Amino acid sequence: MTVDLQRFREEIQRPDAKVREAAEQRQMTLTKPAGALGRLETLSTWVASVQGECPPHAFDRVRVVIFAGDHGVAQAGVSAYPPEVTAQMVQNFIAGGAAVNALAHTVGASVRVVDMSVGSDIAGVPDSVTAHKIRQGSGNIAVEDALTLDEAERAFEAGVAVANEEVDAGADLLIAGDMGIGNTTPAAALIGLLSSRDAAAVTGRGTGIDDETWIRKAAAVRDAMRRARGIKANQIQLLATVGGADFAAMTGFLLQAAVRKTPLLLDGLVSGACAMIAHRVAFRAASWWQAGHRSVEPAHEAVLSRLQLQPLLDYQLRLGEGTGALLAVPIIRAAQATLTDMATFSEAGVTDREDDES
Amino acid sequence: MTVDLQRFREEIQRPDAKVREAAEQRQMTLTKPAGALGRLETLSTWVASVQGECPPHAFDRVRVVIFAGDHGVAQAGVSAYPPEVTAQMVQNFIAGGAAVNALAHTVGASVRVVDMSVGSDIAGVPDSVTAHKIRQGSGNIAVEDALTLDEAERAFEAGVAVANEEVDAGADLLIAGDMGIGNTTPAAALIGLLSSRDAAAVTGRGTGIDDETWIRKAAAVRDAMRRARGIKANQIQLLATVGGADFAAMTGFLLQAAVRKTPLLLDGLVSGACAMIAHRVAFRAASWWQAGHRSVEPAHEAVLSRLQLQPLLDYQLRLGEGTGALLAVPIIRAAQATLTDMATFSEAGVTDREDDES
Repeated sequence: MTVDLQRFREEIQRPDAKVREAAEQRQMTLTKPAGALGRLETLSTWVASVQGECPPHAFDRVRVVIFAGDHGVAQAGVSAYPPEVTAQMVQNFIAGGAAVNALAHTVGASVRVVDMSVGSDIAGVPDSVTAHKIRQGSGNIAVEDALTLDEAERAFEAGVAVANEEVDAGADLLIAGDMGIGNTTPAAALIGLLSSRDAAAVTGRGTGIDDETWIRKAAAVRDAMRRARGIKANQIQLLATVGGADFAAMTGFLLQAAVRKTPLLLDGLVSGACAMIAHRVAFRAASWWQAGHRSVEPAHEAVLSRLQLQPLLDYQLRLGEGTGALLAVPIIRAAQATLTDMATFSEAGVTDREDDES
Repeated sequence: MTVDLQRFREEIQRPDAKVREAAEQRQMTLTKPAGALGRLETLSTWVASVQGECPPHAFDRVRVVIFAGDHGVAQAGVSAYPPEVTAQMVQNFIAGGAAVNALAHTVGASVRVVDMSVGSDIAGVPDSVTAHKIRQGSGNIAVEDALTLDEAERAFEAGVAVANEEVDAGADLLIAGDMGIGNTTPAAALIGLLSSRDAAAVTGRGTGIDDETWIRKAAAVRDAMRRARGIKANQIQLLATVGGADFAAMTGFLLQAAVRKTPLLLDGLVSGACAMIAHRVAFRAASWWQAGHRSVEPAHEAVLSRLQLQPLLDYQLRLGEGTGALLAVPIIRAAQATLTDMATFSEAGVTDREDDES
């Protein structure tokens, strides 16, 4: 199997510029001073452009997809939590008890978890969770490859398939979430490599580690970056060398969502790392994304700067799961609603300012 | 009639500190690293404390009350829009075509508009809109009092009555909105007086005025501040001198909501000015409020600093109506949901970190 990355460069187009222009024009006619809705106005025109229609419609099916996987590097003591928590949290997602479930409920979103490489086999879960599983865990990226090239390719294609499944099922706003003890270590290594930053500058506190653990983690990030320095140009190989099956799948998911013209909210560090790789594959993909929030992880800034995304919120979250992106969903909805539901000056019989042309 | 302000100092208590503590304890047991939900965690404990119960319940009836009034100072050419727009926008609110309606719909909130002093009589609107009307418009605060003392007292008590009406009808989260061409001029004057800032430092662009209009507006703010300098200590007199019936009513509304232990989201500059006055009447009232957003109006910073409120959002809004506060409602809801709906480590059978006591 060889993944055809060139396809994404060709198939991913920019959102509709003409619709965006029509949306900008429409904002000028609505019953409020021009510009008085601030950043909501630019967001509203983005919504129109990714939907390809003005006025845009209310998002109907907001869907979180959590890519779950364990990471061999966690055995090196880089996290405050033991690896078995990944499988336990997958069960928690399915039972509806996690933060992502609570937040999804408040915004009417649904949650799907995809076990790409959790370290154990999870019993009694739906087929949609396990159908794409590639392996248990990954190699310790500080000393060995996370995956074989074949595993990385299959994981990437699984992410493409999941995007197709979700869009075919009606999802019109996607969120990429993550779960995996130790997963900020490969994320930091990938972002460090792609932004040419030092290991110490991209290594954060993850779930809340102490200084001693941070030193071990930074060393693992440094070693992983050294191992991968020669292969930055080959994105699938990079995912095999210092990523993981969850990362490879999420990268494919991000790219295929853009192929399918489906807007997507990035969450924090893990989706940010995958977005940087996807952006190298097809830079136009980023125009289909918004950054849900600003993570407290230091490497996140490198992602935002590279993708030129301004986060929708800054609530000092560092949880993953898609929580930061979910928190931003109502803002996207509010932006859309202004463009769709507000009356124009002429419809409402409201006098516009005299010096205004509209 | 003499308004008894002392009553508010006595009747307004702080939110429940014991419940807040219980909520902080509960956050530590939920299935996520401690602190990983960042600012949502402190917001969740605020929700529990104002509701007086942990876990808190989902907000059931979010209600925006827009206090509408015209301002004599608008005749001095301080706005980009003519005064008749106030009455037209009240009609637009009732017809459901304004930004506040669009945003309220996305969060399941309802909107009430209260005509305190619109410059004309608005025909064909429900009694709930007009029942509390005090007068048409106000005096030009640059040269004369906005209201008589008696009018200010009656307007203040009307705001108290509206708060009682809304809480009695079941509102469990209130939003104070405003509508009135020219109303950022009295707001700036009040904030300038109460924060000892210069007129030029508190005068903003309002609906989007040009330099020439800004100079006229800053002069009006300066003249109003001069007229009121001696009476800062008398809050009702202050509202009569440089406020308006909409301001007096909103101030009473803010205070009585706190008496009734009902949490409230402030919006932008006008509610901020009223909140500063209410805070002088009874400083504990502010612990029942959150600042929905950071307005682009320069005087807003003085409000936030005095009330020690950190805005929930910064989207460069400058519209009023309650729009900035509405945008923040889902964040409050998300915070509440984490505390109420998430499983604990022991409920979910998830392993907590080893060094954690909880």
